Amino acid sequence: MIDQLQDLKERLRQFAVERDWDQFHSPKNLAMALIVEAAELVEHFQWVTQEQSQSLPDDKKVDVQAELADILIYLVRIADKLDIDLYNAALEKLRHNSEKYPADQVRGLSKKYTEYP
Amino acid sequence: MIDQLQDLKERLRQFAVERDWDQFHSPKNLAMALIVEAAELVEHFQWVTQEQSQSLPDDKKVDVQAELADILIYLVRIADKLDIDLYNAALEKLRHNSEKYPADQVRGLSKKYTEYP
Amino acid sequence: MIDQLQDLKERLRQFAVERDWDQFHSPKNLAMALIVEAAELVEHFQWVTQEQSQSLPDDKKVDVQAELADILIYLVRIADKLDIDLYNAALEKLRHNSEKYPADQVRGLSKKYTEYP
Amino acid sequence: MIDQLQDLKERLRQFAVERDWDQFHSPKNLAMALIVEAAELVEHFQWVTQEQSQSLPDDKKVDVQAELADILIYLVRIADKLDIDLYNAALEKLRHNSEKYPADQVRGLSKKYTEYP
Repeated sequence: MIDQLQDLKERLRQFAVERDWDQFHSPKNLAMALIVEAAELVEHFQWVTQEQSQSLPDDKKVDVQAELADILIYLVRIADKLDIDLYNAALEKLRHNSEKYPADQVRGLSKKYTEYP
Repeated sequence: MIDQLQDLKERLRQFAVERDWDQFHSPKNLAMALIVEAAELVEHFQWVTQEQSQSLPDDKKVDVQAELADILIYLVRIADKLDIDLYNAALEKLRHNSEKYPADQVRGLSKKYTEYP
Repeated sequence: MIDQLQDLKERLRQFAVERDWDQFHSPKNLAMALIVEAAELVEHFQWVTQEQSQSLPDDKKVDVQAELADILIYLVRIADKLDIDLYNAALEKLRHNSEKYPADQVRGLSKKYTEYP
Repeated sequence: MIDQLQDLKERLRQFAVERDWDQFHSPKNLAMALIVEAAELVEHFQWVTQEQSQSLPDDKKVDVQAELADILIYLVRIADKLDIDLYNAALEKLRHNSEKYPADQVRGLSKKYTEYP
């Protein structure tokens, strides 16, 4: 079984090669594209309450799903271009966060929380 | 073998439960956290050329790796909160993009490219 | 009396000339710098409620003030580089918004509001 | 003569009052709206070179102008909501930056520059 992140990486490579789009995919440009997609996600939540953001109408959920997909696509692409293993990077960050925020010291504390991550 | 995205989803759930931090993880807040991390990625590339962004010094690459990890962490977390399957969302988006940008029509064209995605 | 936006524009020109930093101030780079500052603003509000965001502690207000300053600085700078008059652009946008959202039709409607601006 | 920033502040207050939209304008929400507009600016520059970003086609310049207007509108609005004087905040930041980056030490240095601002 091929891992999902690996599979996406290979599909995106092929997609770019077929279109000769690697020339546009510098990490600088990809970082810009990624934050643009992140903002399209934010846009869906900018005027709603936190409660409303937890129960999206069906049509809005479809839109949000497409924004999350775009973010993942650019994230996988920039990681590939920089030869970074996303999964191991995330595991390492989780270990770091576990030490920085020991569960028994920060439990439920919004004050500590505001310093996270 | 558990998939990497699934594994991260479960680790992040546990991380939040142990700290009673689910109360802060509304999709609205998580979208904000995600774009903040995306901006920390952008910050590394804001004054360099596209060429420079392709060959980062080692210390900078370590920092960039940590930013990509943070983005993935919030992306997996918000997808979990909204019950969205990231991998299938990305596959669907790729199918959509393949139709929107047929390889034989857009190959190497920056003009078409500027409309992508 | 010199207008504040004009005054800032001239001070920022001088600041860049004295440091020979115009070479870094392409609109592409300045747009990246601006969104990085916008994200530093967002960061202050990511885990707080809307209510909390309305009454900041003094030390946080000082930080937020500095972020707003940075955003204005890059906004004035990019407008100068592109020879755009910020004030008249804003007036034009306000006229556009006034027509798009007639007061007697959208008053207090969050449904309409979610489409704004 | 009324100052442009003051004038915009008052026009935006009136605009919100006429529509009963103050209820949506928490600093948290306005910060989100501002970064969404900043991303729409970034989007115009994401696939172009720095050189291309310096000489926009006329139709693109009109679009960029509208994005800058939106950013200024939300910036003035959030400053008003937090009772922050944008101009004085920018002057203070400029004084800070002048001391942090003495002209005779950082002139033309991209290495120093990468730490700016």
